[in-house]
Amino acid sequence: MVESRYEMVSPEVALETVLKHTPVLGTETVLLPEARGRVLAAALIAATDMPPFPASSVDGYAVIAGDPATTRRMLAEVTAGDARKVTVVPGTAVRTMTGAPVAPGADAVVMVEFVEERAGQIALTRSVRPGENVQRAGQDVRNGQLVLPAGTVLAAPEIGLLAAMGRKGAVVFRQPRVAVLSTGDELVEPWEEAGPAKIRDSNRYAVMAAVEVAGAIALTLGMVKDVRSEQQELIRAGLEVADVLITSGGVSMGVKDLVKGILEEMGTVHFGRVSMKPGKPFTFATVAGKIAFGLPGFPVSSLVTFELFVRPSLLKMQGCSRVTRPRVEAVLDDDVAPAPDRSEFQRAVVRWDGGELHASITGLQASGRLLSMVGANALLMFAPGQKQFAGERVSAILTGPIE
Amino acid sequence: MVESRYEMVSPEVALETVLKHTPVLGTETVLLPEARGRVLAAALIAATDMPPFPASSVDGYAVIAGDPATTRRMLAEVTAGDARKVTVVPGTAVRTMTGAPVAPGADAVVMVEFVEERAGQIALTRSVRPGENVQRAGQDVRNGQLVLPAGTVLAAPEIGLLAAMGRKGAVVFRQPRVAVLSTGDELVEPWEEAGPAKIRDSNRYAVMAAVEVAGAIALTLGMVKDVRSEQQELIRAGLEVADVLITSGGVSMGVKDLVKGILEEMGTVHFGRVSMKPGKPFTFATVAGKIAFGLPGFPVSSLVTFELFVRPSLLKMQGCSRVTRPRVEAVLDDDVAPAPDRSEFQRAVVRWDGGELHASITGLQASGRLLSMVGANALLMFAPGQKQFAGERVSAILTGPIE
Repeated sequence: MVESRYEMVSPEVALETVLKHTPVLGTETVLLPEARGRVLAAALIAATDMPPFPASSVDGYAVIAGDPATTRRMLAEVTAGDARKVTVVPGTAVRTMTGAPVAPGADAVVMVEFVEERAGQIALTRSVRPGENVQRAGQDVRNGQLVLPAGTVLAAPEIGLLAAMGRKGAVVFRQPRVAVLSTGDELVEPWEEAGPAKIRDSNRYAVMAAVEVAGAIALTLGMVKDVRSEQQELIRAGLEVADVLITSGGVSMGVKDLVKGILEEMGTVHFGRVSMKPGKPFTFATVAGKIAFGLPGFPVSSLVTFELFVRPSLLKMQGCSRVTRPRVEAVLDDDVAPAPDRSEFQRAVVRWDGGELHASITGLQASGRLLSMVGANALLMFAPGQKQFAGERVSAILTGPIE
Repeated sequence: MVESRYEMVSPEVALETVLKHTPVLGTETVLLPEARGRVLAAALIAATDMPPFPASSVDGYAVIAGDPATTRRMLAEVTAGDARKVTVVPGTAVRTMTGAPVAPGADAVVMVEFVEERAGQIALTRSVRPGENVQRAGQDVRNGQLVLPAGTVLAAPEIGLLAAMGRKGAVVFRQPRVAVLSTGDELVEPWEEAGPAKIRDSNRYAVMAAVEVAGAIALTLGMVKDVRSEQQELIRAGLEVADVLITSGGVSMGVKDLVKGILEEMGTVHFGRVSMKPGKPFTFATVAGKIAFGLPGFPVSSLVTFELFVRPSLLKMQGCSRVTRPRVEAVLDDDVAPAPDRSEFQRAVVRWDGGELHASITGLQASGRLLSMVGANALLMFAPGQKQFAGERVSAILTGPIE
């Protein structure tokens, strides 16, 4: 009986260990047009009120709401950007366009639809409440307010807020540079003829895409045969140029599985086996402050372990305040008999149906069958040996939008 | 009483009208490292079986499962990529590494953990089922099978499949080029001093980020004052260089709201008002086969109408098979009194809590308050005047991952 000398850790301990050894990277400044998807490294504190002055939210007439006058004399017309000072007193009104300042003295803006104007006089066709259609100064943001905490991922509204607050850029965390290497004597490039016993390298292309989806920068180290000296050289090069090295293949127990041994020589292998299916040989090491992940060679195993362990690590490096995916419960559409001895993560489509979430397994769950991941938006978690039946509720990690 | 001359359309009719006039763009070929997020324009049909040969999913020994022999003679060791032909007959076994071909004659692979090897002979420590740990040729994909239909968004697994199928690139739909222009006398650049009655232009930066999140290419036309000739020139330039023009501001009923008139002169305004809050003045036009969206000037109004109408249009142009967001129901945490006369879309955080989805409104829903969109992952839809109370179920459009 041959046993791996690596202790088997649970998926929970594996993630905890990865995150414990994952540093948050340094910061840099980017201009707003390049800030999308980046993570704010310094809180945004408001330096002015927003809006900076009381502004009209409609096209209409600035008036005093409590003014009993039946007609009001039009004093002026104020459009957005117009800084003229006209004061509204009882019996008067100022025509005020959307976004324009509300004249001093006025406390409401009546929409143009509810006003009849004739010969410089207006009459309201309905009553008006104080504050109606007026955006108070500081209504949206008060001077000194914490607008965005550090760790916020910058999407459209956040970028809008930075611009509104007078920033032309943002201090963000650096994106990890991730070097990706495929290993294996059996591999050829996608465009090469796959002779007998050969297969085309798909992991490198898939993993590089997953790296970019996680907000990091993917670098290719190409692919390498199962030759110790060549793998050593490429792994060393990857750790030199990048913050993170990701290999795929070469982490099983075979005579040509060299990755774990090479990483042990260079640094510390924190674990070399995880009690899960797929992905048991997933390996995590640190080498001189850099991070190395040894993904299994099967395409599904590599992407599932990437999703569960590598992605959270890349998000932590970028300073994200949240690094894991949302979890929900869904009603299972299928009977499932998971692995007897390991946690199993099956790919599924979670959809909203008849007032609740349902989960359908994406067919055969073989570790080479990438089709089991196509269209999947969830990983369902099954405890070892715990059979589950259609109609039961199951825990789902949402990896994409609900159908 | 002044009434807009544009008929008010419902949000449903507005979306339908936008999509009816939205063309699907042409195609181009990209290499796999640039394919992430792009949409496949030609179906991927398998030209080989996957795996191409029966392969071992573990490190172990290829045997005949029904072989009654108590010990088996080791014939050879086969590693991944090794094309040697060794045939297993009763009483023999071939040491077989993960990913290596399963020797002809064998019908199962016993994991190395369940084998004792001594002096070229092996003994199994447990029984083995036919097919165990063997990935049959064509198990994952059969030659001739439809692997990915046109319209599939390319993420990591799909890119892996393209590589595995021997593709070095993919035929994808072209990304729309989108020119973005802010209008308004009141606007200054984020880095300029906002004097009295001025505000900083945030919409352009926010909308450009939203354009990129929707997979399109954002081009800036800068900002322009409320001067007809200048706006005409920039709108014309935008429609010349881009597939889509997006303006913000200038679509209300004020004297300086020039965008609708300019678009009418150049092409066809399909609608100029939508019965919704926020976003009533949202405008949609076509000009010589190009598309123009007039977003309202308030920051929230512009991003909400972008989300509901512009994003689906940009996704359709890119050939996406699905252009709208998922909808779920969630239990409301707040009482809501929506607008009496229009559909209201309130921003909310939807989270999984106690076995069901809950939705919390993100504070004050003013159309200038970008903070109401920060952290929001949903738009809740309320029918005109239909009050809803905490504990009731409400329909939610999910715009981001569930919390």
